[in-house]
Amino acid sequence: MDQLKPSPANSSPLTPLGFLDRAATVYGDSTSVVYNATSYTWTQTHRRCLQLASSLVSLGIRPGHVVSVLAPNVPAVYELHFAVPMSGAVLHTINTHLDAHTVSVLLRHSESKLIFVDILSYPVLQDAMKDTTVDPPIVVLITDVYVDAPSPAVDHTYERLVEMGNHDFKWVRPKSEWDPIVLNYTSGTTSAPKGVVHCHRGLFIVCTVVLMEWSVPKQPVYLWTLPMFHGNGWSFTWGMAAVGGTNICIRKVDVAVIYRSIRTHRVTHMCCAPVVLNMLANAPSDRFQPLTHSVHVLTGGSAPPAPVLERVETMGFIVTHAYGLTETGGTVVLCAWKREWDGLPLSERAKLKARQGVRTVSMEDVDVVDPGSGRSVKRNGSTLGEIALRGGCLMLGYLKDPVSTSECMGRHGWFYTGDVGVMHPDGYLEIKDRSKDVINSGGEKVSCVEVESVLYSNPLVYEAAVVARPDGFWGETPCAFVSLKAGSGRVTEKEIIEYCRERMPRYMVPKYVVFKDELPKTSTGKIKKFVLRDMAKSFSALKKVDCS
Amino acid sequence: MDQLKPSPANSSPLTPLGFLDRAATVYGDSTSVVYNATSYTWTQTHRRCLQLASSLVSLGIRPGHVVSVLAPNVPAVYELHFAVPMSGAVLHTINTHLDAHTVSVLLRHSESKLIFVDILSYPVLQDAMKDTTVDPPIVVLITDVYVDAPSPAVDHTYERLVEMGNHDFKWVRPKSEWDPIVLNYTSGTTSAPKGVVHCHRGLFIVCTVVLMEWSVPKQPVYLWTLPMFHGNGWSFTWGMAAVGGTNICIRKVDVAVIYRSIRTHRVTHMCCAPVVLNMLANAPSDRFQPLTHSVHVLTGGSAPPAPVLERVETMGFIVTHAYGLTETGGTVVLCAWKREWDGLPLSERAKLKARQGVRTVSMEDVDVVDPGSGRSVKRNGSTLGEIALRGGCLMLGYLKDPVSTSECMGRHGWFYTGDVGVMHPDGYLEIKDRSKDVINSGGEKVSCVEVESVLYSNPLVYEAAVVARPDGFWGETPCAFVSLKAGSGRVTEKEIIEYCRERMPRYMVPKYVVFKDELPKTSTGKIKKFVLRDMAKSFSALKKVDCS
Repeated sequence: MDQLKPSPANSSPLTPLGFLDRAATVYGDSTSVVYNATSYTWTQTHRRCLQLASSLVSLGIRPGHVVSVLAPNVPAVYELHFAVPMSGAVLHTINTHLDAHTVSVLLRHSESKLIFVDILSYPVLQDAMKDTTVDPPIVVLITDVYVDAPSPAVDHTYERLVEMGNHDFKWVRPKSEWDPIVLNYTSGTTSAPKGVVHCHRGLFIVCTVVLMEWSVPKQPVYLWTLPMFHGNGWSFTWGMAAVGGTNICIRKVDVAVIYRSIRTHRVTHMCCAPVVLNMLANAPSDRFQPLTHSVHVLTGGSAPPAPVLERVETMGFIVTHAYGLTETGGTVVLCAWKREWDGLPLSERAKLKARQGVRTVSMEDVDVVDPGSGRSVKRNGSTLGEIALRGGCLMLGYLKDPVSTSECMGRHGWFYTGDVGVMHPDGYLEIKDRSKDVINSGGEKVSCVEVESVLYSNPLVYEAAVVARPDGFWGETPCAFVSLKAGSGRVTEKEIIEYCRERMPRYMVPKYVVFKDELPKTSTGKIKKFVLRDMAKSFSALKKVDCS
Repeated sequence: MDQLKPSPANSSPLTPLGFLDRAATVYGDSTSVVYNATSYTWTQTHRRCLQLASSLVSLGIRPGHVVSVLAPNVPAVYELHFAVPMSGAVLHTINTHLDAHTVSVLLRHSESKLIFVDILSYPVLQDAMKDTTVDPPIVVLITDVYVDAPSPAVDHTYERLVEMGNHDFKWVRPKSEWDPIVLNYTSGTTSAPKGVVHCHRGLFIVCTVVLMEWSVPKQPVYLWTLPMFHGNGWSFTWGMAAVGGTNICIRKVDVAVIYRSIRTHRVTHMCCAPVVLNMLANAPSDRFQPLTHSVHVLTGGSAPPAPVLERVETMGFIVTHAYGLTETGGTVVLCAWKREWDGLPLSERAKLKARQGVRTVSMEDVDVVDPGSGRSVKRNGSTLGEIALRGGCLMLGYLKDPVSTSECMGRHGWFYTGDVGVMHPDGYLEIKDRSKDVINSGGEKVSCVEVESVLYSNPLVYEAAVVARPDGFWGETPCAFVSLKAGSGRVTEKEIIEYCRERMPRYMVPKYVVFKDELPKTSTGKIKKFVLRDMAKSFSALKKVDCS
């Protein structure tokens, strides 16, 4: 038995790239990508990706080189998810909301050889390139007939590279399934960006398992509300090829565009951050269109407030709550639904659904542990601990950062997420906060998420975020930032505090409430807590301040 | 980038065994297994498997030991698919239709340490053990309250091992994902049995990918028409735990039992050989119950005749045609359905569905090649070649048989299946025959399957099999064995030959037609062609013989 070993026939590297030629065979005449009035079939997408990959090789791109992309959800970015790694290179997508300085830092850190840039992001890139004097990357412009912008003079355009390519190109298969395929810098809500490197194997596993776990049928119509530059759109970029889906591309997350797209294209599936669900739930009537069919939504990134979940489910969205990080390549924990929960009242269901859930089968294990000892915390739904993971779709590590890599992956054979959560008695995980977001108030640990959840249940509140404010006596106290729904009228700090007092222990109640028209957010819709934390710090310790 | 390597956190071995504790968490109170009036929940199944695994360790079973099972589709066999490998041992399921001599050969060849035996298979095992004097395996009896049979005196019973076990047992995880998990002897329609060894990784891949490809939803109700001892029921044993399904166990493939089970349990999914579809299509009225809901059926093993497909689809079965071998751990080629085919007439649809289809994403590649050169044959739907595969769920190899292993896996990095097929211009594969079943008639290659398909289209024919008969002049000629539908009356050989003449080239028309009440079959419902081939050989070369 011991003599039976892996052989070339059974150990060909797992990779999500193989989904594409299969899609061309099975779904060749079906629509692969739609963007405004432009659309492609899977035969065309397959051909275009091969052509593009061959052009990249002609331009000198070699296995292991980094090729960057600075663009929103346009068809080119979808194609590049295949074309770049099919040339052997590593795909590096950049958040289009970053400033020029950060972009230049990422280009240098990644040693990018070539960058594809959207016409609207070109000015930022130009600025970024000013800092990049040594070995600047080749620039390829992605033009857009639907955008009215001056076209700069550049050496290469995207469509030209597609045209000049060879569709008989033999794409470069990975030598090992552990070869890198993508590089994604974390968006850095809490710290400096880190370059997450994933391998072919990890993304193959996360793609197939999530499609299975979310029960995605063949040929779904998938709306790209989630940016593809955000963890490769939780890997649904490749995933849609595996099931022959239709990718509806949109440039910008706009609630009217979303409602219109859902109706026009009969969208069946979409992913988004909870903030988008909140937008959908509170869309003004002139931007809203009632759903004529059900839409499956996978949401994550932070816990969706139960009242928001309740609202959108009533509207026809079927929400599945999931959890993953850039470091996991996509969803690894999912709130698997139990049939017996169907009969519960909507509010109970929303509360259960707000939990992150259980590991998908891509993970060997998921646990909430004491970060010091690595031991599991009690399964009581209240003892806080750090969420730790181990399994086949975790990243290889952070690029050129062995210290950070070993800090999160070097302990006890687990990956430590930095997220704080509890394990419920039924084995379902619930995240309470990023570890930096837990408030230590006189020795009591306050979960900001819990306080926020109560604030969201107030019918006048549109958005809420709670952070720590340094306090001479308590060490830290909760400080709430709140924006109100349109037409809510005047609400006082006292009323909000009173509302909280009736619904939570006294130590959790925010000592300060700050009203804002809008809360500052990252490009992926996460509230920028570090900005709020700085604001909270700057308030006088002696006086309550309303800075709205 | 090169410095990022697999680490313990991201390289924990892939294994389907982890599906079980997840099922206990998510679907704990849901029904896992049903057998007559007995049923279990996933919590119970999880607990019983841990207890059983711990008992196996107590009995001296160690990692790498082979543990055998000789039993039909009863709950114990389902549990053993987890419990045996959870003890670290390799699961070896034995076909219950084998004779004592073959069983003894397999027990010796596998060096089995312990065998679980169903009460009705006990006499066969007793006979088999007579030949096994050196190190006979420990025998554990699986009793059955629904079977009226004398209980022999044995040292161990299945339920006793479950009871005495420890449900806190820490199950034995594979050290490497390439560690063996199962040993399945091929049923040998064409040659001596070979011991196919699969590893944890391969079965994880085939399980998750097939659930995705067949779009199996959460909590299906799965009827065990396919024997679990046949390639581990195409790996749906573990697969059902991944989706929290309910396993409906039946002892025997009986058309009345199938129809009754479908209705009683509201079965949603089942797998079976085409011969079972034929039984369902031709069930006598006293054994038939019209379907009140749709049932998804995955079929394979041989091509289902188009008329049979047509019939069962009209009845409410939604058939997906798939292809796999014991050596692939389950389905690796599947007739992925295209939306545009929906509008075709039923007979056209059945013809398209009779093709095996395209690779699932578990396979890197599937091709039809010239076995000598390894080069792809023309994609014209007519040039015959050998079907070759490469990908992540192929077996490790044959136990103690490096020659056979290297014969099929040692060429050009592919696994050669021994099946003969064509590649259609649209990239869909169609199997024409086992290589031994292709008839060489005066230099013309005759595919038995094609001739059989025509015979099945005759409304009087119940079953048909075509084999080669040695011929002094032609080398070989086609010889047909036919059984007729009840009430078909008298049909002559001449009529059948005439029917074929009108529908195929002359060289393909059977020269002999033999009528039989029933064709000989293997336990999995495949027609025993080697028996028919021997019969055909024995006929006088000068005289046509009717041996019915």
